[in-house]
Amino acid sequence: MTTDKELFIKMVLDMWNTRVQQTDKLLTELSDEQLLQEVTTSKNRGIYLLGHLTATHDQMFRLLDLDNPIFPDYKNIFLDNPDKAILDIPTINEVKQSWTNVNIQLCKHFKLMHANEWFQRHTSVSQQDFEKESHRNKLNIVLTRSNHLGYHLGQLILLKR
Amino acid sequence: MTTDKELFIKMVLDMWNTRVQQTDKLLTELSDEQLLQEVTTSKNRGIYLLGHLTATHDQMFRLLDLDNPIFPDYKNIFLDNPDKAILDIPTINEVKQSWTNVNIQLCKHFKLMHANEWFQRHTSVSQQDFEKESHRNKLNIVLTRSNHLGYHLGQLILLKR
Repeated sequence: MTTDKELFIKMVLDMWNTRVQQTDKLLTELSDEQLLQEVTTSKNRGIYLLGHLTATHDQMFRLLDLDNPIFPDYKNIFLDNPDKAILDIPTINEVKQSWTNVNIQLCKHFKLMHANEWFQRHTSVSQQDFEKESHRNKLNIVLTRSNHLGYHLGQLILLKR
Repeated sequence: MTTDKELFIKMVLDMWNTRVQQTDKLLTELSDEQLLQEVTTSKNRGIYLLGHLTATHDQMFRLLDLDNPIFPDYKNIFLDNPDKAILDIPTINEVKQSWTNVNIQLCKHFKLMHANEWFQRHTSVSQQDFEKESHRNKLNIVLTRSNHLGYHLGQLILLKR
């Protein structure tokens, strides 16, 4: 018998896994040359968007109280600064490997989490606020980050010519 | 006291409302001329993407067993056919009005739905399949369509120059 909580967790993790798999598939279809291009004139490059997604997912370890980020340098390059502001960035192969690595590690943690744990507060909301706003839980981080991934996947796919 | 179901409905509807509001805001910032352009060379035009989103949301009335679509003609133009395949399409002002209209009507229906109703099957899954796959419920339609909206919003925003 599936509880309500287990059902919601499945709905959210299904959406997450679908978008991660679609992004992985797209990465097998795009050349490194394409990933170094802007998605359209004067907008972000593919490598920046993939680094941005990797950095966003890497921050989830801390938000979900699981671990430290695996690639702490990515935050400055791909979250705190816009594309082309920092010249010395990882290579496209390094970013692709980091992307895969972060998602594999997140997936491992997700599998070990108990249903009740998903409905506990995430680390950027205080206990006091959480008592009034219980929707600000760990599962909501995965829900919103899946949508964030969808947003940038819609941009990355434009690199297919 | 909020039940698990009510909490999860809030999480999903918050995501939906956020993306609809962000799209509405973007539409106030883009000129009609911009919306008639392709998001990047040889890709969909803004008007097509907005029509596609409107048609997708309009189909939700039936999927959620609420009503008939308001703009049944949109399905053929913006869902069953790619951009530029059909020459005689609504004007940008008509598409913008339809977009607003569909979302207002959906929102009205959402407010009247009871918590349990959200966890009933949507109309494209059979009762038999639903017994084994209870995640294929009405709320999951809103969850996946919010992500679909995020995907195309990420493209529409590229029209801002």
